[in-house]
Amino acid sequence: MQFNIQSVQTDLTEQIVRKINTKTKPVGSLGKLEKIARQIAEIQNTLHPELSNPAIIVCAGDHGVTEEGISPFPKEVTYQMVMNFLGQGAAINVFTKQNNIKLLLADTGVDFDFEKNTSLIDIKIAKGTCNFAKEKAMTPVQCEQALANGANIVSDLNASGTNIIGFGEMGIGNTTSAAALLCAYTGTTGIEAAGAGTGLDEDGILKKAKVIDEAIKLHGPINAPYEILETFGGFEIASIVGAMLKAAELKMVIMVDGFIVTSALLAAYYIDNRVLDYCIFSHKSQEKGHQLMLDCIGAEPILDIQMRLGEGTGSAVAFPIIQSAVNFFNEMSSFEDAGVSDRE
Amino acid sequence: MQFNIQSVQTDLTEQIVRKINTKTKPVGSLGKLEKIARQIAEIQNTLHPELSNPAIIVCAGDHGVTEEGISPFPKEVTYQMVMNFLGQGAAINVFTKQNNIKLLLADTGVDFDFEKNTSLIDIKIAKGTCNFAKEKAMTPVQCEQALANGANIVSDLNASGTNIIGFGEMGIGNTTSAAALLCAYTGTTGIEAAGAGTGLDEDGILKKAKVIDEAIKLHGPINAPYEILETFGGFEIASIVGAMLKAAELKMVIMVDGFIVTSALLAAYYIDNRVLDYCIFSHKSQEKGHQLMLDCIGAEPILDIQMRLGEGTGSAVAFPIIQSAVNFFNEMSSFEDAGVSDRE
Repeated sequence: MQFNIQSVQTDLTEQIVRKINTKTKPVGSLGKLEKIARQIAEIQNTLHPELSNPAIIVCAGDHGVTEEGISPFPKEVTYQMVMNFLGQGAAINVFTKQNNIKLLLADTGVDFDFEKNTSLIDIKIAKGTCNFAKEKAMTPVQCEQALANGANIVSDLNASGTNIIGFGEMGIGNTTSAAALLCAYTGTTGIEAAGAGTGLDEDGILKKAKVIDEAIKLHGPINAPYEILETFGGFEIASIVGAMLKAAELKMVIMVDGFIVTSALLAAYYIDNRVLDYCIFSHKSQEKGHQLMLDCIGAEPILDIQMRLGEGTGSAVAFPIIQSAVNFFNEMSSFEDAGVSDRE
Repeated sequence: MQFNIQSVQTDLTEQIVRKINTKTKPVGSLGKLEKIARQIAEIQNTLHPELSNPAIIVCAGDHGVTEEGISPFPKEVTYQMVMNFLGQGAAINVFTKQNNIKLLLADTGVDFDFEKNTSLIDIKIAKGTCNFAKEKAMTPVQCEQALANGANIVSDLNASGTNIIGFGEMGIGNTTSAAALLCAYTGTTGIEAAGAGTGLDEDGILKKAKVIDEAIKLHGPINAPYEILETFGGFEIASIVGAMLKAAELKMVIMVDGFIVTSALLAAYYIDNRVLDYCIFSHKSQEKGHQLMLDCIGAEPILDIQMRLGEGTGSAVAFPIIQSAVNFFNEMSSFEDAGVSDRE
């Protein structure tokens, strides 16, 4: 699948910066909000940016690597949590409802036969990936299909007026997949990349690191970014990769969530690093390897409140702060408008 | 003025913790949101907490110490910014409007004759404090009156249904007052406590530190917390101290903002340290001395996004996150309710 991403370019940067600096406040005193306002105005190439119809897509999928015993929760929790999403009972339901964010749910590869349900987008590739401790997680055709599925959802959302999008995920075993992707893309080791996930103890983390290191060895060096994704990814991760690349192509603002979603961004980044221009980093996850990912791409998230839940919850909780950035930019008076004296 | 503050006490702690831990998420995975939810449920002594009619009171006042040349902005900016608040053009207007927070504006001591205005609460003590580099900033009677004024506004708000309150301030020179309070309460030095404020350069900060150190020496050791407030405080700061102590007495949730508002909390804390039980710390200010204040009372703020604007903006921007904490606690399903398997 081809994506046609352009770097953010605008002739308005000087005017955007001047607009921020003449607001009735000390220069720089809104900190990160000023950076976000500038980035969004530059992405949208306007002095009057807007966030319209914000949406979060939660992609769910199962992982063959759960056979290796790398999660304290049984695999059934993936479909059970999808049912919980459909019943409005999960954290992501609460936070998207609070902040008026449209929530889309997609089955990218859950090992369960859901009843036909208009609230669940059926883009199931298979009932879970293969166990990457033994073979590649997916075939090139499956990976291509997952990328296209994610891209299509984003295209539809954009056509209906969404210009800011976040991603969430559900998949027992997917912190192992994300950590393996981190190792494969950056050359770090299992013990650096593997964290507690949903709640492993120290022995569990060591086992997870070993599974990852042995899988990296089994598959040997891989250079092609798509092949790394095929080898270690999940269907939900690959769908998010396609969705992110399409969102960047469509010049949408991308909210990047925690460990799993950032592993998808890492894949997208190695496919086309211009995707970064469109990304706002919602939060730093407490999951151990997340800081390594953020360092790798030079990202500084908005929140650091020890969250590690997934589902896109970091983006849903951080969204009002992104909105605050756009609002001060549009609504605050300048020194001149307000008749306030500037520095002596 | 006497305040009757009780420590937060509840028989429900075990049930509150169980409610948090049985939500459909890994234990602890909502990080700081879980701590906030627990604190609010304990303050309100209920398993069904609510945030009702949130409000922020912005107190404005002038400072005699501006005579010493410790701010890059002229003193007139205090009243001009009050006019800007009244005209809805300031950052705090934008953020309170976004997040449905009631905004109250109070003139505690601005050196300007405002036209009668129903949007501006007139609790002016005098047209600015005295210059604490030469004499005490205010008299005991003035300080007592400012405390009572702040307390009265909070009582009225509480009677009309507000159970969560934040504070903001405007006053050219007030980072110098706040830094002097930090020194007087904790024994730190001017150079540790003084920061750039609205934008001083290195030389300006050194001068500010010297003004503070010399004033501390001039007034000699002071032990009584009220007398420290009288000596170095501003009318806006003293009003906020009284407001905070009353809010704690009324078992309201207190949102603590940045450097100036935390200096008011420091005063309140030395008057009655039980006030801390009711405090949620909104953000870490980029103003240098704020971390010292936070360390002094063991506080860990929600946001660290390099803001240093004042006006209560940190609290206004952080409010949706506090709301998220209450919402997950009330609205998320438990493992049992949702039919999701717990850990194996």
